[in-house]
Amino acid sequence: MTSPLPFTLNPKTDLVLERTIDVPANRVWMAWTTPQHLKPWFCPKPWVITKCEIDLRPGGAFRFDMQGPEGQTQSFTACYLEVVPEHRLVWTLALEPGFRPAAKEPLPGVKSFTAIISLTPRGSTTVYNATVLHPDETSAKTHDEMGFTDGWGTALTQMVEYVKTGM
Amino acid sequence: MTSPLPFTLNPKTDLVLERTIDVPANRVWMAWTTPQHLKPWFCPKPWVITKCEIDLRPGGAFRFDMQGPEGQTQSFTACYLEVVPEHRLVWTLALEPGFRPAAKEPLPGVKSFTAIISLTPRGSTTVYNATVLHPDETSAKTHDEMGFTDGWGTALTQMVEYVKTGM
Repeated sequence: MTSPLPFTLNPKTDLVLERTIDVPANRVWMAWTTPQHLKPWFCPKPWVITKCEIDLRPGGAFRFDMQGPEGQTQSFTACYLEVVPEHRLVWTLALEPGFRPAAKEPLPGVKSFTAIISLTPRGSTTVYNATVLHPDETSAKTHDEMGFTDGWGTALTQMVEYVKTGM
Repeated sequence: MTSPLPFTLNPKTDLVLERTIDVPANRVWMAWTTPQHLKPWFCPKPWVITKCEIDLRPGGAFRFDMQGPEGQTQSFTACYLEVVPEHRLVWTLALEPGFRPAAKEPLPGVKSFTAIISLTPRGSTTVYNATVLHPDETSAKTHDEMGFTDGWGTALTQMVEYVKTGM
């Protein structure tokens, strides 16, 4: 089971997307934690995931490459921090795999963040909560203006659709 | 038991202090993980630890204040990443408690690092390994020149002395 996280949500530095979705938590978990099932939904179209590597354990690698419609690419390397199957998944861009502090920002001008995905079963549905922690207000604002809610929201809609059509 | 860490040691960015010490691993663990037993040895004298807070779980806080002989103070806030009792303790300055990316460098000009303390019992002694991971060569070099080996080595000598005299 999940245990309470030792942090207090700070609305000035944290962005939250919460939605009740009518798919079971074990399917959402599978969609987040296996490359085969992450690729189809993780990027808002027309961007796509061209590569995904998952080493699902604290300290393990979470790597993915995104490609845009004009062929432009972005590569991300994150590190898992907490893995509670079907309940909570925490990863950060502030550390590389093996817990080494990241040498640079994930994208120019964008500071690292930590993502906490929490799944709470409620009947046949799941309360899906994605909370993203930033180091300061400016980086939260930048992430918000870059379209956090639309981006993560659209990806979630794609995921629900993908799960419903049989994965 | 300990599991292999998913990282490869990089001699250009990582600093290592390894020593076989003739005190048992469970005492070393206690010295690292309880404020009462950390304070007496953690700083090379004449510096002292004036405050220490430990919330021993992944995501938990590791905070300590150091005070120098002229009264100057330095405060550090770290986050535990891995806690394997009597075997391995991992904490980082790159994240604040609750896994939030740190907003600033721990000291001006000093980049964040991750510390991995590994304890391997060997008869009545313990192989003590402290490995410190830096984001890049420059920060490893800076930490080395600031006296990593002397500092961490002296603290370890103080710890062994403290354990041997009954804690």
